[in-house]
Amino acid sequence: MDTGTTAFMLSCIIALTLMIPGLALFYGGMVSVKSSLNMMMMTFSAAALVGVLWVLFGFSMVFGTSYGGLIGNVTEFAGLRDLAEAMTTVDGLPVSLFALFQALFAAITVALVSGAAADRMKFSAWMVFAGVWAVLVYFPAAHWVFAFDGVVTENSVGGWIANKLGALDFAGGTAVHINAGAAALAVAIVLGKSVWFGSRKPHNVPLTLLGAGLLWAGWYAFNGGSALAAGTSASIVMVTTFVCTCSAVLAWLAVEKIKTGHVTGVGAASGAITGLVAITPACGSVTPVGAIFVGLISGAICVYAVGLKERFGYDDSLDVVGVHLVGGLVGTLLIGFFASETMPGGVNGLLYGGGIDQLWRQAVAAGAVMIYSFVVAYLIALAIKKTMGIRISPEEEEQGIDAKFHGDWAYELQSA
Amino acid sequence: MDTGTTAFMLSCIIALTLMIPGLALFYGGMVSVKSSLNMMMMTFSAAALVGVLWVLFGFSMVFGTSYGGLIGNVTEFAGLRDLAEAMTTVDGLPVSLFALFQALFAAITVALVSGAAADRMKFSAWMVFAGVWAVLVYFPAAHWVFAFDGVVTENSVGGWIANKLGALDFAGGTAVHINAGAAALAVAIVLGKSVWFGSRKPHNVPLTLLGAGLLWAGWYAFNGGSALAAGTSASIVMVTTFVCTCSAVLAWLAVEKIKTGHVTGVGAASGAITGLVAITPACGSVTPVGAIFVGLISGAICVYAVGLKERFGYDDSLDVVGVHLVGGLVGTLLIGFFASETMPGGVNGLLYGGGIDQLWRQAVAAGAVMIYSFVVAYLIALAIKKTMGIRISPEEEEQGIDAKFHGDWAYELQSA
Amino acid sequence: MDTGTTAFMLSCIIALTLMIPGLALFYGGMVSVKSSLNMMMMTFSAAALVGVLWVLFGFSMVFGTSYGGLIGNVTEFAGLRDLAEAMTTVDGLPVSLFALFQALFAAITVALVSGAAADRMKFSAWMVFAGVWAVLVYFPAAHWVFAFDGVVTENSVGGWIANKLGALDFAGGTAVHINAGAAALAVAIVLGKSVWFGSRKPHNVPLTLLGAGLLWAGWYAFNGGSALAAGTSASIVMVTTFVCTCSAVLAWLAVEKIKTGHVTGVGAASGAITGLVAITPACGSVTPVGAIFVGLISGAICVYAVGLKERFGYDDSLDVVGVHLVGGLVGTLLIGFFASETMPGGVNGLLYGGGIDQLWRQAVAAGAVMIYSFVVAYLIALAIKKTMGIRISPEEEEQGIDAKFHGDWAYELQSA
Repeated sequence: MDTGTTAFMLSCIIALTLMIPGLALFYGGMVSVKSSLNMMMMTFSAAALVGVLWVLFGFSMVFGTSYGGLIGNVTEFAGLRDLAEAMTTVDGLPVSLFALFQALFAAITVALVSGAAADRMKFSAWMVFAGVWAVLVYFPAAHWVFAFDGVVTENSVGGWIANKLGALDFAGGTAVHINAGAAALAVAIVLGKSVWFGSRKPHNVPLTLLGAGLLWAGWYAFNGGSALAAGTSASIVMVTTFVCTCSAVLAWLAVEKIKTGHVTGVGAASGAITGLVAITPACGSVTPVGAIFVGLISGAICVYAVGLKERFGYDDSLDVVGVHLVGGLVGTLLIGFFASETMPGGVNGLLYGGGIDQLWRQAVAAGAVMIYSFVVAYLIALAIKKTMGIRISPEEEEQGIDAKFHGDWAYELQSA
Repeated sequence: MDTGTTAFMLSCIIALTLMIPGLALFYGGMVSVKSSLNMMMMTFSAAALVGVLWVLFGFSMVFGTSYGGLIGNVTEFAGLRDLAEAMTTVDGLPVSLFALFQALFAAITVALVSGAAADRMKFSAWMVFAGVWAVLVYFPAAHWVFAFDGVVTENSVGGWIANKLGALDFAGGTAVHINAGAAALAVAIVLGKSVWFGSRKPHNVPLTLLGAGLLWAGWYAFNGGSALAAGTSASIVMVTTFVCTCSAVLAWLAVEKIKTGHVTGVGAASGAITGLVAITPACGSVTPVGAIFVGLISGAICVYAVGLKERFGYDDSLDVVGVHLVGGLVGTLLIGFFASETMPGGVNGLLYGGGIDQLWRQAVAAGAVMIYSFVVAYLIALAIKKTMGIRISPEEEEQGIDAKFHGDWAYELQSA
Repeated sequence: MDTGTTAFMLSCIIALTLMIPGLALFYGGMVSVKSSLNMMMMTFSAAALVGVLWVLFGFSMVFGTSYGGLIGNVTEFAGLRDLAEAMTTVDGLPVSLFALFQALFAAITVALVSGAAADRMKFSAWMVFAGVWAVLVYFPAAHWVFAFDGVVTENSVGGWIANKLGALDFAGGTAVHINAGAAALAVAIVLGKSVWFGSRKPHNVPLTLLGAGLLWAGWYAFNGGSALAAGTSASIVMVTTFVCTCSAVLAWLAVEKIKTGHVTGVGAASGAITGLVAITPACGSVTPVGAIFVGLISGAICVYAVGLKERFGYDDSLDVVGVHLVGGLVGTLLIGFFASETMPGGVNGLLYGGGIDQLWRQAVAAGAVMIYSFVVAYLIALAIKKTMGIRISPEEEEQGIDAKFHGDWAYELQSA
């Protein structure tokens, strides 16, 4: 066991946990004051639920011995038993720590989806969706992408995208962001438009900016930690993560300025998250200057992508589709162009003299996760709608979802 | 010296420091807008005061050579001098770093007590209480529990609970949470009820949720760092810390839903903190599945425990008793049932075929700290009341304690 | 390569990134609600801009081979290319990680200056200033102070303050705080007084306290990370950083109490930042008890220093001069008195029997950075004023700068 690497990954757990309040604030600040508690509660509660499921059987489904590259053995590591026997991964990391690192990926990914459900989804329906989607979609997709052959035990066989397809996805552009974004689209469609659609205004932009800042800090653990070692790879990955975020903020604000004449706080926050999403798959494959381009391109594209919901009429309330699905696709595909073999990923993209080979692998991985996630999320949401009901009434929406489910208001600023 | 372990503990300092604003927000959001600055200031100021006392002589009182297991030599390490001589603990950690790690435990524990003093305690009285209680109660109790024989210097003799009684308390269920909770009860009784008692409403739930999130992140350093090494123990401890928190959130919300029909933001935050408190002593002794049970049990019990103040009429304003004292007791005692010798603690509890032996050790430790802390805190508060006065007038309470001591309002949102 | 040291520095990146939202909130909470978004956007946008410039050529200007100790070779490391070749610093740290650590210093320093520009600076003028000042002032000054001979490559030659003058500045009292403070003074003078001057009130003190807390946590990475190794030096530096902050809070509040009868939230936050600023240069040179004195002295002085703007009529809106310039000078000069050769700095100050030698070196370093920064910042701001214009109209100030540039309000708390 390497104490340096272990120290790094322990610190990553702390940083990843900051993403839970980070996401809650990022989302919570962007909705109406009447829906803000609900928004934050969806993140906290989903994270709590997925955390328990992960320990019980989720880790085993993702990293247990694979059935044909599709899903892991559900009982092999159930309950995370035998952790104290100091089992380490082949990289010399305690398996318990690797399991916890991946637990937070799962918790955060599921919570991301809630951004499409603002103002109108029954809280019980959300909790059921979160649990079922985690089991039926996230755990399989994470198996495909993150379960490299031999990562947990020397002879273990992992998922098809990581091992057979050979797509490059350093930290989850597919399994996390395309996955959550596609599910968000399905949920938005099944839910239908909120009464607030088109007139939603952020109630607390400082919270959203703070949330984005916490997510930025935690994201280094997401991306850098995916190197699973305290070394040059993690360092380089953090550099590309940093500078892509910076350039995406600049791109978003510049395009926004041209389009609307203003540079908004929500724009700065969204630009940062877009850059972080886009660099997630690419952080180990592109050079620092390549990362600047990834940031500029994704930032500029996603300003437009968040406008698609108005054009097509789906109420992706907080732009999970526009930022995570589109940003994830952009980042995953740009690897095919900007990858440089001097980086840890070790492959040249089109612009560095590589062929189209890597690009189609990227496209297959992105497409497979996107379609699987969308279809199954749609069916889960539809089943919930047909059985327990998925949405509150328009009157309840007007009065605010916080009052209905959470029994209190977010603020009480005019004390008697 | 192990650079990996040192790196981990350095990172823990950063994370523990996040608990200072974390606690300030967690508490500050739960009080009326007229008392919110005071609440936050109690945390920041107490932490600052205890930090200085710790360097001057606190570390020496806790980790200096013991007088009979009761208290350390107050001058041995006074001023933390000689740190640059690269003295390391027997675990290979720089003593300066160990001292700083424990400094933050002291600062946070004292600040925890302030949750019982909302709205009505004179600021100067609080500062005096914080300083005196740190010296007379926290430093001794920390010596009992945290000063293992030989931890700082090879031949040093430490405290009675850690070394003679052999109670298991991985990260301070007794010295931190039972201790703070018992003192809070004493302070609440001496102060008497606030004019806001029974009608207090949280003024800013997002701040409370954010505070809980920061505390959660920092708590990994609290618990994991108590392993004093970057290795398997710290990793396992973080796993149990994570999943106990998740399950306590679910338990709290479920019971709250049944009791009141709502799942509140303050409930989610309180559930998280309850789980964190309960796992603090137990994080090195219970399996991940055991941790889920600790979370479910403590979460469900503490929903009821926070209601005791209404029944018995003590104004434990922000539930330090209900969450920290009761949660700490639950966690400390559950070790006697759920401890598994496969975990770092190395002991089997009742449910794993161990006898009642560990359970009574846990009970003695919990009881000793609880009684000592309650009695001395009560005497300190009473002495303050009889001399300088401890409470503001009811009229001042109505107008708000912020106006009296802090000369400004927390918010100025309607700018002219 | 040392994985422990690498792990520590990777964690420092995460913590330093928390300083970006930390600074945005610290500043954003202190201005009027009509200017709060602008304040936060100045931090985020400047950080993003400087981050990109740093990767393109900033790192090379600071750490490239020196031209006469004044500035590094701008093309040597342009684009941070060749990072994947696992180049390490002479301390065994990946150069990419060292570059990223220093990137965040640059981003934060530039953002600090914005505190003098509240309410009234054109956003485009700020962005131009930020970029030009980074290139013409921060990069050179950082080269002088941080580019030790041989730090990046074995034979590299660095800056004049670090190598020829031999002033002690552990983590940037000169290059960061005196530098930002002097530039802030110049900007304040060129801008002139805001219509809010003298009547500015903080709109959200909890945000300011939270911001101070995040800055405190991140500052350990700033100071401790400057040891560039996970070891005793970083540990000691964190101890002095911690206790100086604590004592400065106490000093500020005590003086404030005597002066005004109140202890304010902004005072607690300002006291903490003052202590952190003052210990930044001194954290490796003074003992823990010495650090307490540095905190008490700087805290007490800066309560008065922030009042200078009223006396002299420059609108240093958020006290960048009073806290960063004065605090930085105090800390830099106190090294000449309190330095102890038992500490990592290895020099005795006047109070420890050293001569006046170190003191004049400190004074030369402080003076050189202060004068250079002030003059060049003044010229940049003046050039902006004469060409594109630097300030919005008084009517626009009255209506609020957020409305003009950011098109939205920070809050929307009275939802229809």
